[in-house]
Amino acid sequence: MRFEEAYSGNVFIGATPEVEEADTIIYGMPMDWTVSFRPGSRFGPKRVREVSLVLEEYSPYLRRDLSEVKYYDAGDIPLAFGNPEKSVHQIGNFVAKVLEQKKMPLGIGGEHLVTWPVVREVSKYYNKLAVIHLDAHADLRTDYEGEIYSHATPLRKIAQLIGPENVYQFGIRSGTREEFQYAEGEKIHFHPFDVLEPLKKSLPELEGRPVYVTVDIDVLDPAFAPGTGTPEPGGISSSELLEAIHAISRSGVKVVGADLVEVAPAYDPTEQTPVTAAKVIREMLLGFSK
Amino acid sequence: MRFEEAYSGNVFIGATPEVEEADTIIYGMPMDWTVSFRPGSRFGPKRVREVSLVLEEYSPYLRRDLSEVKYYDAGDIPLAFGNPEKSVHQIGNFVAKVLEQKKMPLGIGGEHLVTWPVVREVSKYYNKLAVIHLDAHADLRTDYEGEIYSHATPLRKIAQLIGPENVYQFGIRSGTREEFQYAEGEKIHFHPFDVLEPLKKSLPELEGRPVYVTVDIDVLDPAFAPGTGTPEPGGISSSELLEAIHAISRSGVKVVGADLVEVAPAYDPTEQTPVTAAKVIREMLLGFSK
Amino acid sequence: MRFEEAYSGNVFIGATPEVEEADTIIYGMPMDWTVSFRPGSRFGPKRVREVSLVLEEYSPYLRRDLSEVKYYDAGDIPLAFGNPEKSVHQIGNFVAKVLEQKKMPLGIGGEHLVTWPVVREVSKYYNKLAVIHLDAHADLRTDYEGEIYSHATPLRKIAQLIGPENVYQFGIRSGTREEFQYAEGEKIHFHPFDVLEPLKKSLPELEGRPVYVTVDIDVLDPAFAPGTGTPEPGGISSSELLEAIHAISRSGVKVVGADLVEVAPAYDPTEQTPVTAAKVIREMLLGFSK
Amino acid sequence: MRFEEAYSGNVFIGATPEVEEADTIIYGMPMDWTVSFRPGSRFGPKRVREVSLVLEEYSPYLRRDLSEVKYYDAGDIPLAFGNPEKSVHQIGNFVAKVLEQKKMPLGIGGEHLVTWPVVREVSKYYNKLAVIHLDAHADLRTDYEGEIYSHATPLRKIAQLIGPENVYQFGIRSGTREEFQYAEGEKIHFHPFDVLEPLKKSLPELEGRPVYVTVDIDVLDPAFAPGTGTPEPGGISSSELLEAIHAISRSGVKVVGADLVEVAPAYDPTEQTPVTAAKVIREMLLGFSK
Amino acid sequence: MRFEEAYSGNVFIGATPEVEEADTIIYGMPMDWTVSFRPGSRFGPKRVREVSLVLEEYSPYLRRDLSEVKYYDAGDIPLAFGNPEKSVHQIGNFVAKVLEQKKMPLGIGGEHLVTWPVVREVSKYYNKLAVIHLDAHADLRTDYEGEIYSHATPLRKIAQLIGPENVYQFGIRSGTREEFQYAEGEKIHFHPFDVLEPLKKSLPELEGRPVYVTVDIDVLDPAFAPGTGTPEPGGISSSELLEAIHAISRSGVKVVGADLVEVAPAYDPTEQTPVTAAKVIREMLLGFSK
Amino acid sequence: MRFEEAYSGNVFIGATPEVEEADTIIYGMPMDWTVSFRPGSRFGPKRVREVSLVLEEYSPYLRRDLSEVKYYDAGDIPLAFGNPEKSVHQIGNFVAKVLEQKKMPLGIGGEHLVTWPVVREVSKYYNKLAVIHLDAHADLRTDYEGEIYSHATPLRKIAQLIGPENVYQFGIRSGTREEFQYAEGEKIHFHPFDVLEPLKKSLPELEGRPVYVTVDIDVLDPAFAPGTGTPEPGGISSSELLEAIHAISRSGVKVVGADLVEVAPAYDPTEQTPVTAAKVIREMLLGFSK
Repeated sequence: MRFEEAYSGNVFIGATPEVEEADTIIYGMPMDWTVSFRPGSRFGPKRVREVSLVLEEYSPYLRRDLSEVKYYDAGDIPLAFGNPEKSVHQIGNFVAKVLEQKKMPLGIGGEHLVTWPVVREVSKYYNKLAVIHLDAHADLRTDYEGEIYSHATPLRKIAQLIGPENVYQFGIRSGTREEFQYAEGEKIHFHPFDVLEPLKKSLPELEGRPVYVTVDIDVLDPAFAPGTGTPEPGGISSSELLEAIHAISRSGVKVVGADLVEVAPAYDPTEQTPVTAAKVIREMLLGFSK
Repeated sequence: MRFEEAYSGNVFIGATPEVEEADTIIYGMPMDWTVSFRPGSRFGPKRVREVSLVLEEYSPYLRRDLSEVKYYDAGDIPLAFGNPEKSVHQIGNFVAKVLEQKKMPLGIGGEHLVTWPVVREVSKYYNKLAVIHLDAHADLRTDYEGEIYSHATPLRKIAQLIGPENVYQFGIRSGTREEFQYAEGEKIHFHPFDVLEPLKKSLPELEGRPVYVTVDIDVLDPAFAPGTGTPEPGGISSSELLEAIHAISRSGVKVVGADLVEVAPAYDPTEQTPVTAAKVIREMLLGFSK
Repeated sequence: MRFEEAYSGNVFIGATPEVEEADTIIYGMPMDWTVSFRPGSRFGPKRVREVSLVLEEYSPYLRRDLSEVKYYDAGDIPLAFGNPEKSVHQIGNFVAKVLEQKKMPLGIGGEHLVTWPVVREVSKYYNKLAVIHLDAHADLRTDYEGEIYSHATPLRKIAQLIGPENVYQFGIRSGTREEFQYAEGEKIHFHPFDVLEPLKKSLPELEGRPVYVTVDIDVLDPAFAPGTGTPEPGGISSSELLEAIHAISRSGVKVVGADLVEVAPAYDPTEQTPVTAAKVIREMLLGFSK
Repeated sequence: MRFEEAYSGNVFIGATPEVEEADTIIYGMPMDWTVSFRPGSRFGPKRVREVSLVLEEYSPYLRRDLSEVKYYDAGDIPLAFGNPEKSVHQIGNFVAKVLEQKKMPLGIGGEHLVTWPVVREVSKYYNKLAVIHLDAHADLRTDYEGEIYSHATPLRKIAQLIGPENVYQFGIRSGTREEFQYAEGEKIHFHPFDVLEPLKKSLPELEGRPVYVTVDIDVLDPAFAPGTGTPEPGGISSSELLEAIHAISRSGVKVVGADLVEVAPAYDPTEQTPVTAAKVIREMLLGFSK
Repeated sequence: MRFEEAYSGNVFIGATPEVEEADTIIYGMPMDWTVSFRPGSRFGPKRVREVSLVLEEYSPYLRRDLSEVKYYDAGDIPLAFGNPEKSVHQIGNFVAKVLEQKKMPLGIGGEHLVTWPVVREVSKYYNKLAVIHLDAHADLRTDYEGEIYSHATPLRKIAQLIGPENVYQFGIRSGTREEFQYAEGEKIHFHPFDVLEPLKKSLPELEGRPVYVTVDIDVLDPAFAPGTGTPEPGGISSSELLEAIHAISRSGVKVVGADLVEVAPAYDPTEQTPVTAAKVIREMLLGFSK
Repeated sequence: MRFEEAYSGNVFIGATPEVEEADTIIYGMPMDWTVSFRPGSRFGPKRVREVSLVLEEYSPYLRRDLSEVKYYDAGDIPLAFGNPEKSVHQIGNFVAKVLEQKKMPLGIGGEHLVTWPVVREVSKYYNKLAVIHLDAHADLRTDYEGEIYSHATPLRKIAQLIGPENVYQFGIRSGTREEFQYAEGEKIHFHPFDVLEPLKKSLPELEGRPVYVTVDIDVLDPAFAPGTGTPEPGGISSSELLEAIHAISRSGVKVVGADLVEVAPAYDPTEQTPVTAAKVIREMLLGFSK
């Protein structure tokens, strides 16, 4: 006798119960201890899974169905509350195991600092890794009031690791003067305010290269994603974000990992933020998987 | 002595207390028992009426005032909780009475299944009835996990009744592969994703014909209508929906009935969803009435 | 043909559509412009009606059914936004008409200032009128920062009109030092903090006398009624408030009017505050009506 | 390689991943289509699991730890949206499988109608089954506006099945006159308003007998459980409900099945309702298991 | 010893603690007693300050940092609850003091009536003052149901004071027929529905003139600003509003005062409305200050 | 010229603007990075101040007015986001300054870990310091999943510092088996579940001694304080908590410091939690100050 309902009811819609047959591993990174404004993104992964049931498994945009791709939902990585250094280590360890198994990591945050240990692991497996970063905030600080482990620093760390010339930022509309000066002075491919047009222009030059895609849900205007820690008015719409994912999917880049971060459900009683996150992840699954 | 306040305070703004002099009957269809995700649209009609007081009676878009049209608000139709078959019957009976009196039915939902019995009755009175359908979801299933009475099936039933060639769908961005194949293979006028441009192109061919207009509030992006049962990111804006109503109003089609469905107030503490629904209904009253 | 649903759906549960046959008139006093903290009680009457549908019509406490009493729901009195003086006048006019018709006024607020014009009218019809006042706040100020029309002053005005010896206050746990000194120095029957015990002791001395009962929902602890303008922790429970209404109902006093005020739905997404208010009003209808 | 996090993160706290070693099966019954007021309890089981992580695994009341009992969380039973008859059938089938395996069923609702098919199955396995029912509502109707499958009827059906003399009701404070007359006239052990005192008096006479315990979360005052479909002011506190569970646990009755129903998370942004439900279920697990 | 945290923590981000060195004075006008629908904007100024901490002090749009401008946050003006006439007087007195000190007034509302006493004072200091008004509502009534002090009248009063030819209105999409006729018949520069295009066309003719800018947050679509008293669907986006502020900043007009009104936080649990208001005020500070 | 409103409007009600004349310093400790369930108490201090305006300055319980005591509100201590060790250090430094000035520290949290550095400083100034601890949780762990800086450990640290025989715990109803064994085995004065009766029995033995009082708002049942990180059903009421503060106030103990922690406003849209916290702090100010 089996009671298999638990698995099918509490994972991302359409996930397979067999890890071995999966090409992609979905996992939550429930960390929010370094955020400077509203915490709560630790509950993002759970709520995204829960509301993923509102979606159809078929994407009329990509004309593909979730039944055509194989992914396993590994749940949330257990993390050390209030200890960013140890948490970063734990995330890195988990992703290393995913990569060893030759599976694609697809993470759900949590605050943006979680992207740092993931990219560090991914960069060990892929030469000339590039990062596509969609966000309202530059996240290019060296530290935040003295703390180097902060949700304001991951892209700076990544730029130093893989080289700023391999970082592509889109939609940035908030940061310190120093961050903007760094972004504009360095070789970062820095595209403030807009997403779709500069992204479409950048994709051809990335053709054939391994790319990690990191999306901060606050690249959306708060109207489209109010449930996030540091909402920043003046962003793009859900339609534009979906179109950006589709553009990457249809381009010649080779996505080798991705994440969607900063969903903080407590600030959005309408649940539109986790629903939108779930739809973006569905399109990532359908568009980025082979 | 009279205490007439009750009537004027609890009906849609500007409704006449005299049913006889009305050309249009507003009524609620408080049904939500077949929905697959978030129930609660049974409270939609009540809340739409309550918040309609935020509106002016004058529309600067149509340059017309509610005092120029006559409509009666009949309240909510009493329905059998949890019994879709009986509820569908009760709605049909009510609308039959409205049509007998030669008045235009203008319904507020409630889940989308309610449109099925209404159109069935309306189709008895009008030859060559066409249906204009604005929605995020195709609603073209034959059944939902075995249930033929489901919020996922009304347009399929309608297509079978009046012929798929008389169904015009706009804004659809969600459905199963089967629904999209049906829509694209059949003679349905199927316009996924967009609303305004294909609608404006379609209206001339409908000129002079009797048309029923059904609007699912989730045709709007969840940013504009979070208070609904199955929010689907990537939709149109309130401005576009209003412009769509105005386009129909100014075209040569003869609207003989309309509804606006799937307002679920519990998921929208901001009340913007029922407020938007109320404004759309005001424009329907001003634009669709003679 | 009739479409009578509107009336039955938007009035307090069980209300008769025929004003002539009613012994009691329910009416809303949607005023909140003088409140010092959170406004919004103008929407109290509407929401109390709407949620009254959650209730059974039968009270197992009083073993009586709403079908045994006759009451008409007159809706909300139209008031002049932002003009307390004129609003007070409008409420007085309305209640005068109710009393002329020899019907009992049963009002729903709205801020507590609304009780002042009602009691003024009621006192013209009944000799030796007493007032029973359940509240967290003394409401005994002469003015609030210079304003004599304020939600902090109605009981002072009433005490001056009918004599402090005819005012019975229960549950008071907030006020200025001056208010407490006035209450304790004057002949007011002043019972701070507690409700049930002092009320039961006071009722015998009121036997046979005409009594107006005014209940501020904030006499309840905020746990039981968070949806109010000036929540004051440390109050009584819903059970105790219901028991207080039952004690008055079973006593020999002759209730000639009553109100329940300060329900502000916007601050209570759970709706427990209007639901509790509706139940209290049901018990008033069953307990206070002949 | 294993990624076992999903199981540990999305089930009731402390549940074992191995169904075979479990003595008790937890399962959700996500049905809410027959409710007369606010739907949404279909999401109750999911949210109760999610927030169960707030709890310690140790109960200082019972001085027992969840590690001492073995239970498996089977997830939610898939049900036919909007079809109460089929849903009741599906629940019955599931529970039959649980009982065949000689495991104790511990269900989470969903509306109260779900208790009917469960008790029907349980009664096949245990002679002289008694039912302990804690609720605000009598649920003793023969039908609700004509529907026999309704959240207002389950205890009537159960009384007819196992005999009214085997039904023990506590805390009831709402119902029609007919329901109260039936309860008081029949041999039902009917204890309106109070819970703890009559329960403690009743337990000795149930000693040694198999008992099914069904708790409607609305037996609590809405202050303690606002997230429910038909809140009824005047109820008991969380402390009293916990003490009731402890009294049953320490008595000589043999609990053979239990459920907790009517948690509707959408109406409680504070999450106190699912948290309280989770704690009650923890105490049931610790107190009712051998 | 000093404990200076209180000042820095509870004022608009970056405000100087020294009033003398400030060029601009920020102040709240916590008035909402004349509003016709949802009150609560009295808490707007406080919440805007609180959430201003989410912002960076640097604007990448204007490439300027708050450290480059000097402004003092004077807190909220104490007003007479429920007395619009006295409140208008109190606001006027405060602003007169600000202008005497040759500092620019930058107010946060509060309902829109507050703009009337401010402009009256400002007009005493500047010849040929023009007013730029961004709003969903015309606010051109002579009275609202008899009340001349109403949130529906300020622009009519202003037009009469400074001459309709000096009033520029943008984005208006709601009003009575009379208001639209007045606006179109008088010499008001009246631009309904749109903001950006007509604003950019109008700015050149205002070059060199002193201008007061008043922004009603409801010029935004409710999707972008749900926390307001009279939400009106069909508005502009946050991006467009920011661009409008930037257009004024970069034009040759001389801004001599500004306000942003009608933020009512209670209706927006996501806080996106006060966050957007705070960002608009940051851009006003950076763009309008010398 | 002065614009003093900012100070008076954004501090705890009745606070003096002159730090020198104050006997007590109120300060916020906006830390929540180590919490295991719902973060957000960093916003507790700000919201408590904001809603303190709902209170009268007079306490009818203690018959004393805030004008009779002198306290300064120092705002929130700036802390290092995500770095518990540094934050603990920053809090200690701040409190050391307060104690040097011979002023009483009265802190608002923030998570409970903040109490540890405060008591460490206070214990340097007072011989034989005792701690009175009101809480739902024992907070007696040595570490939380390896982290010694955790909201689950402060009382263990304090017990080790001042000796377990000087720690008095009341109301505890949650913890691990180890915590309960430690509490019951050590010399801690451990009073689980109840507060008032054991507190009143304990106070005489503390007479004359310096005492630090720490209140976790979750000692209240979630019905009375839903806005907290780890709600634990089965707690005391607001009335009982107020009475506990009054009992300490009237006893012969010498309160030398106090705090109220774990108010997390985001989870309580009703604001009753910060309102209750504000009232408790008012009673602490009136009862604990000389």
